[in-house]
Amino acid sequence: MSKVACDLSISLDGYVAGPNRTLEEPLGRGGELLHQWALRLRAFRAEHGLEGGDTGPESDALAEWQKSSGAVVMGRRMFSGGEGPWESDPNANGWWGDDPPFHTPVFVLTHHAREPLELSGGTTFFFVTDGLPAALEQARAAAGERDVHIGGGASVVQQALRAGLLDELNIHLVPVLLGTGGVRLLEGLEQMELELNAVTDSPEFTHLRYRPRS
Amino acid sequence: MSKVACDLSISLDGYVAGPNRTLEEPLGRGGELLHQWALRLRAFRAEHGLEGGDTGPESDALAEWQKSSGAVVMGRRMFSGGEGPWESDPNANGWWGDDPPFHTPVFVLTHHAREPLELSGGTTFFFVTDGLPAALEQARAAAGERDVHIGGGASVVQQALRAGLLDELNIHLVPVLLGTGGVRLLEGLEQMELELNAVTDSPEFTHLRYRPRS
Repeated sequence: MSKVACDLSISLDGYVAGPNRTLEEPLGRGGELLHQWALRLRAFRAEHGLEGGDTGPESDALAEWQKSSGAVVMGRRMFSGGEGPWESDPNANGWWGDDPPFHTPVFVLTHHAREPLELSGGTTFFFVTDGLPAALEQARAAAGERDVHIGGGASVVQQALRAGLLDELNIHLVPVLLGTGGVRLLEGLEQMELELNAVTDSPEFTHLRYRPRS
Repeated sequence: MSKVACDLSISLDGYVAGPNRTLEEPLGRGGELLHQWALRLRAFRAEHGLEGGDTGPESDALAEWQKSSGAVVMGRRMFSGGEGPWESDPNANGWWGDDPPFHTPVFVLTHHAREPLELSGGTTFFFVTDGLPAALEQARAAAGERDVHIGGGASVVQQALRAGLLDELNIHLVPVLLGTGGVRLLEGLEQMELELNAVTDSPEFTHLRYRPRS
């Protein structure tokens, strides 16, 4: 059965991005520290056209995650990388380049209608103006038997949690504090119990898989 | 070498207490969910004079933690359990009863000078009016070769982190969201990297041991 899942790196103080996000530094101050664990993995590097990298349980888990993806849903800001080109030029290409690492249809939540944007490597961005449930429905149809991944940002994940539309929350807990002013993943939510389904330890990070209890 | 450590249960959204804290419910709405993992462990039950309970790595880790404690430092609110009796009656006994589970000297940070309060089982509360560094110094002297444990609350842990006075941060990550309005453990801090030293998995919770990098 196809599921809706997300997979995000957060700091120990709960942030997916640091303070002072700018177009040059869309992850905010220190935000790049959240993603270093992935950069060294073979599965991550292969997806981005790079050679080498570490093998092992972490890389295997990432490869499995990549393989399970049939479609992606993301917010406008995650597509555009910030407020810049997207706001001023509705034909801008986001910040993912000509060969984005998704290799599936990607459904971007936005208020600006726009024609689909087909790029190399199997990624086509579709722009959805009627909200998250509609985007998830289109993504499910596109994904077939594979899963729908919510790419982010935090507000999209929060919407999905609030609406009971998220089946799996994968968290990579990074041992860093990003400090006041960043973007918190789990903010403004109601009380909710989750089930811890899997933990993958690494020497430096902790990868956790939760399922919201319905 | 004696160290300063703390050990707290937090929700996945980072709270040590839920919203709407009252004298009757000092942990706030849902806050008791953070501590259920401990209640079932033999080491916890023994410390509180109860029989039975689960053995295994979690109970062993807790027993080791208890054994390492030579003195405790805590905030006023953790001593009093809220705003009530402590504010209105400076001779109030806190909410720990006649035989508190510390069995060591406990140094309470407060603005109200008060004579030490000696109770059964080896617990004596000392009241320190000149701040956290002074309290830690007294606690270190009392602890000898054993460790100083910061019991909480969140603001005392934050003070210690800010001042570089915390050697070890133990977190029990509980798969529940407590939602808006609770007390966050890691709030208002500067950017900081930590080292992940140990992970103890349980079927339901994740126990993490960090050391702030200096």
